[in-house]
Amino acid sequence: MSSLINDVDRLGFESAIAHAQQSYDEGGVPIGAALVWHGSGSSASTTSDEGIGACPRVIGQGHNLRIQKGSAILHAEISALDDAGRQKPDIYRNATIYTTLSPCSMCTGAILLYKIPRIVIGENVNFKGEMELLRSRGVEIVVLDDERCKELMGKFIREKPEEWYEDIGEKHP
Amino acid sequence: MSSLINDVDRLGFESAIAHAQQSYDEGGVPIGAALVWHGSGSSASTTSDEGIGACPRVIGQGHNLRIQKGSAILHAEISALDDAGRQKPDIYRNATIYTTLSPCSMCTGAILLYKIPRIVIGENVNFKGEMELLRSRGVEIVVLDDERCKELMGKFIREKPEEWYEDIGEKHP
Ligand SMILES: [Ca+2]
Ligand SMILES: [Ca+2]
Ligand SMILES: [Zn+2]
Ligand SMILES: [Zn+2]
Repeated sequence: MSSLINDVDRLGFESAIAHAQQSYDEGGVPIGAALVWHGSGSSASTTSDEGIGACPRVIGQGHNLRIQKGSAILHAEISALDDAGRQKPDIYRNATIYTTLSPCSMCTGAILLYKIPRIVIGENVNFKGEMELLRSRGVEIVVLDDERCKELMGKFIREKPEEWYEDIGEKHP
Repeated sequence: MSSLINDVDRLGFESAIAHAQQSYDEGGVPIGAALVWHGSGSSASTTSDEGIGACPRVIGQGHNLRIQKGSAILHAEISALDDAGRQKPDIYRNATIYTTLSPCSMCTGAILLYKIPRIVIGENVNFKGEMELLRSRGVEIVVLDDERCKELMGKFIREKPEEWYEDIGEKHP
C-alpha cells in the first residue's frame, strides 16, 4: 500500500471520491471511478506545440448506478468507461483508472479488455476484489487505504446490506 | 466441442443468433447474447402449482452496441445482463448465458461476478476469448462451433477491421 500519489493521481482519485459521495447522496451504492488519460506529450509541459489535448485529463467518470437506474452492469468503473465512450486502443494503454473500492471481476475484466496498465484503488478492506487477477496480468496496482472510502462504504454496507450483496452477486449471509 | 444442446439451449442460442444478425443489419458488431433462467420447478412440468414463472425463460437478451450507441461497454453479454436488470443472486446461479462468440475478459468477468454457472458459445475461431479463465473458475462451457456464427463474424471482421479491433481493445495489425 502506498499513499504516494502525484498531482494527476490526485485529480483522478478526487473525481472518483466525489462520485462515490454523489452516489451515496442519491441513495445509491457509494463507489466512484474515473479514467485519466496521461496525454500525448510530456506531462510537465503545458506549453508544447501539441496544444490542447496533450495534457493529462479525466476522460471518463461515474459511479455505481444499480439503485438509481436499476442497472446490473453500471458499476463505477463500467460507468466511467461508458462516460469515456469509444476510444482508440492506444488511449487506454496510456491511462490510469481510479476507483474508490477494489474492483469486482466484471470491472477487472473491463480493465484487462482495454489493457489499462495501472489502477489506483481507494481501499480493499470492505471488498477484496480481483487484485490477484489484475496483478497476474501485469496491471500496476496502487492501494491508498483511504479512510474516507473505507468509512463511506462501510456505512452503506451497514445501512443497505441486501443491495450491497446483490451488487457483488452474493447472497446476504 | 459439442452440438448436443437441449430445447432450452436452442431457445437461448437462437435468441443470441437473432440478435447478432440484427446488429449486423444495423451496421454494428454482429455478436448477440441471451440469459436464460432455468426456472424454479422441474423443467419437464409446465402444469405445476408454481404457475407462470416456474418454467425456463429468456430473462435478458441483446447485442453489441459499440457502433449503434457509441458504447465501449455494451458488448452482447453485457447488453443481455443489462436487459435482465437487477436480479437476485439466486437467479444468476440457476441460469445459462448464450453468446455467439467466445467472451472477452469484460464479459467473462461479468459472468464470474454473478456466478453464472454455464455458458454456451457459438464459436471461438474468430476470437479465442477467456475460456481458460472461465474454466479455471468452474464455469461449464459448451462450444457449438456454429457455422452461421463463424460466417457472420468473419464477414464483419473483413468488412470493418478497425471497429472490430477497437471492440477488443487491440490495435489493427
Ligand atoms: Ca465523457
Ligand atoms: Ca428485459
Ligand atoms: Zn465492478
Ligand atoms: Zn465482451
